[in-house]
Amino acid sequence: MQRTDTTSSTDASRAAARRQQILIAAAQCFRDHGFHAASIAKISIAAGMSPGHIYHYFENKEAIIAAIVAQDLESLLTLTAELRAACNVREALIERAAEGVADQLDTDSAALKLEIVAEAARNPRVAQIVRDADAACRRELAVTIRAIRRVAGHEDSPEAVADMGEVLACLFEGLLLRSIRNPDLDRQRVARRIQIAINDLLDQPGG
Amino acid sequence: MQRTDTTSSTDASRAAARRQQILIAAAQCFRDHGFHAASIAKISIAAGMSPGHIYHYFENKEAIIAAIVAQDLESLLTLTAELRAACNVREALIERAAEGVADQLDTDSAALKLEIVAEAARNPRVAQIVRDADAACRRELAVTIRAIRRVAGHEDSPEAVADMGEVLACLFEGLLLRSIRNPDLDRQRVARRIQIAINDLLDQPGG
Repeated sequence: MQRTDTTSSTDASRAAARRQQILIAAAQCFRDHGFHAASIAKISIAAGMSPGHIYHYFENKEAIIAAIVAQDLESLLTLTAELRAACNVREALIERAAEGVADQLDTDSAALKLEIVAEAARNPRVAQIVRDADAACRRELAVTIRAIRRVAGHEDSPEAVADMGEVLACLFEGLLLRSIRNPDLDRQRVARRIQIAINDLLDQPGG
Repeated sequence: MQRTDTTSSTDASRAAARRQQILIAAAQCFRDHGFHAASIAKISIAAGMSPGHIYHYFENKEAIIAAIVAQDLESLLTLTAELRAACNVREALIERAAEGVADQLDTDSAALKLEIVAEAARNPRVAQIVRDADAACRRELAVTIRAIRRVAGHEDSPEAVADMGEVLACLFEGLLLRSIRNPDLDRQRVARRIQIAINDLLDQPGG
């Protein structure tokens, strides 16, 4: 029987669903046991699939990390594209920052991101995945910051824009640790303070 | 033979040296293998001591983490005491922030801190250690921020001071991830931008 387009698109969506099922199970295992102890055997039990099935979709645990990081990157690229399509990019960035703060303070997601970066510090393959994604984020963030600063009359050097991007990144990435170190922090009030800090950051002297 | 004071002080300093030797070896193992895989057996090899010796000083790996976290807390408490003894606390904080940035960007130390917080997300005993230390840091930071704000005529609510402390913590703790995600960032330039951000933060509206 010849394979029709419909069959192949059903196959593709089934494969996508399977991949997603594995990513969710793996994320849970990485959070609960750490990258090292989260074996493919454990992931396969959590996903309700055989290890062979897992290996059909992902060569190894690093490939799973790469897919998780790629999904996060995709969300961030969508967000920056939306921001830049806004009439007032600066207002849009500050407004959306409240959601960003809430996302970063989600303890499960924070635990997974910290586990991935901790693993990057000792595993060169994971380091490469994390650094490539970060470089892509930084490029988009730089375009966004430059657009905002130009409206205010600043013509900054690439270095100044990059450095402001680093401070913005610190504000958001620091929240990953805060959610675990101080789970009782007031999310809304901290979001408001972060918004003010971003507003001030966008007015830093150029260079 | 009766034990003299000298003997007992030599014993105490030998014990302190042994403890420190274990902490250094354990920190290396936690960084290199993760908390879970860094067994007492691995730590004892790295420290050049028997496992029995390690257990003589530390009941388990959590006790080692507690000692590492206590040392970090001690440094931070010393720093805040020094800041508050300065004629101009605000200037002292901003000036010392440059060193703080450099410390946070040290990749080895960042990797260890991230590993500890990642473990705190899954291990309630480590979570308690990390949260107690963080609460002590926050109290000191609040006193320091309040002192600075009072000089500028602000009488803030405890909540406003706590929230500004959270943003300050984000700036510093975010650096732990930045050092791994973007090892090529320009440390001095980023330190300068963080200093400006702290200066602006200290001028945020009260509440």
